[in-house]
Amino acid sequence: MTKGAMLYEGKAKQVFETDNPNEVIVRFKDDATAFNAQKKGSVDLKGEMNNAITTLIFEYLNTKGIATHFIKKLDEREQLVKKVNIIPLEMVVRNYSAGSMAQRLGVEEGIKSPVTIFDLCYKRDDLGDPLINDHHAVFLGAATYDELDEMYELSSDINDILIELFDQMNIILIDFKIELGKDSNGKIILADEISPDTCRLWDKDTMKKLDKDRFRRDLGEVTEAYVEIYERLKKVLHK
Amino acid sequence: MTKGAMLYEGKAKQVFETDNPNEVIVRFKDDATAFNAQKKGSVDLKGEMNNAITTLIFEYLNTKGIATHFIKKLDEREQLVKKVNIIPLEMVVRNYSAGSMAQRLGVEEGIKSPVTIFDLCYKRDDLGDPLINDHHAVFLGAATYDELDEMYELSSDINDILIELFDQMNIILIDFKIELGKDSNGKIILADEISPDTCRLWDKDTMKKLDKDRFRRDLGEVTEAYVEIYERLKKVLHK
Repeated sequence: MTKGAMLYEGKAKQVFETDNPNEVIVRFKDDATAFNAQKKGSVDLKGEMNNAITTLIFEYLNTKGIATHFIKKLDEREQLVKKVNIIPLEMVVRNYSAGSMAQRLGVEEGIKSPVTIFDLCYKRDDLGDPLINDHHAVFLGAATYDELDEMYELSSDINDILIELFDQMNIILIDFKIELGKDSNGKIILADEISPDTCRLWDKDTMKKLDKDRFRRDLGEVTEAYVEIYERLKKVLHK
Repeated sequence: MTKGAMLYEGKAKQVFETDNPNEVIVRFKDDATAFNAQKKGSVDLKGEMNNAITTLIFEYLNTKGIATHFIKKLDEREQLVKKVNIIPLEMVVRNYSAGSMAQRLGVEEGIKSPVTIFDLCYKRDDLGDPLINDHHAVFLGAATYDELDEMYELSSDINDILIELFDQMNIILIDFKIELGKDSNGKIILADEISPDTCRLWDKDTMKKLDKDRFRRDLGEVTEAYVEIYERLKKVLHK
């Protein structure tokens, strides 16, 4: 397999074509951004850790019957994935209040929700990835109501599996963001990554944040948090 | 019936108690605000027009089987209504893109939506009445999922009736905002008002805005627009 031209460069990842039109290589960068790229920086080892963590989580989700784009890890920074058409919606799944939701509703962070909260956001950097609803998504042609139902079901299944997995790691899964895409058969599958960049992960005993909020809020020990997640993940998955 | 103490003063209305604990008097003011009260002003005749227009529309909706808080018009500025517990959610129903939705999604105004769009907003001036979703509403305890379903159904029915009514007036109903409340039996009914303050109404031939956007955007002829809506409404309702 040959690494070809760069197809896309995002804030934290690059995507390269391969000699197989249905497969691409994702390269994880150490670059970190927050608040719609108003804050920029770099976190040592982040690329390697997110590649390793996403690999372990996507492999685990695959064993639990969740269809993902993941094929295999190539090296410390790269993985091979199925090429998908990314649905231009971010799905945020929340078990506790935090971040933009806490701000929006004027509530404290860390309140357990009696129901699973799904926030649909429109992937448009120039608009600040705004919160939208199902009707907006249909109006925009981003998804049909049936596809949205499928996306919520898939997200809910992923949430159930991840809550349990992180619980074994003595971690509360506060919330996480996923992106979904359609594979070459038009099937909606999990894409992008699941890592401390895209989750809020609090230690169950100390409530210490072990995720990108350490970067966003200048809490220090950022690399250490990513490494800690990787180490705990390896342990519970016996890797 | 005696008018008692003022229970509440909002941006465009005052509410007074009566000697009947289940009924209150609503008084429509000429005060106008926009952009979460950052813009303030006054529109001649607005109070009278909104009282008269809301009266005609709520009476009409009643004849179509929609339960509302409306009892009767008392004088030029006042009406008697059932006292309800207002659900702290604003329901915005949209048939065309406009206003905050157009801004949020980065689209032009006036695009017809293939589906009816319902925007749920949290009534909290200090937060800017943010757009939320069903899960947030349940998290906040503002409504249950079943109540939300009921609210969407009621809003959809009201939309169908109003599209038809305004169509007879040669007007396109772009969008409107309603508030719902629970009556003394816990039944969810339409409250607040339906007027050019709470609707976007465009003349079908000229696309001229006949609503509060004339005030918001300094388009002039604000009073004239409100009077125009009232006159057309009277004509189609043979009042």
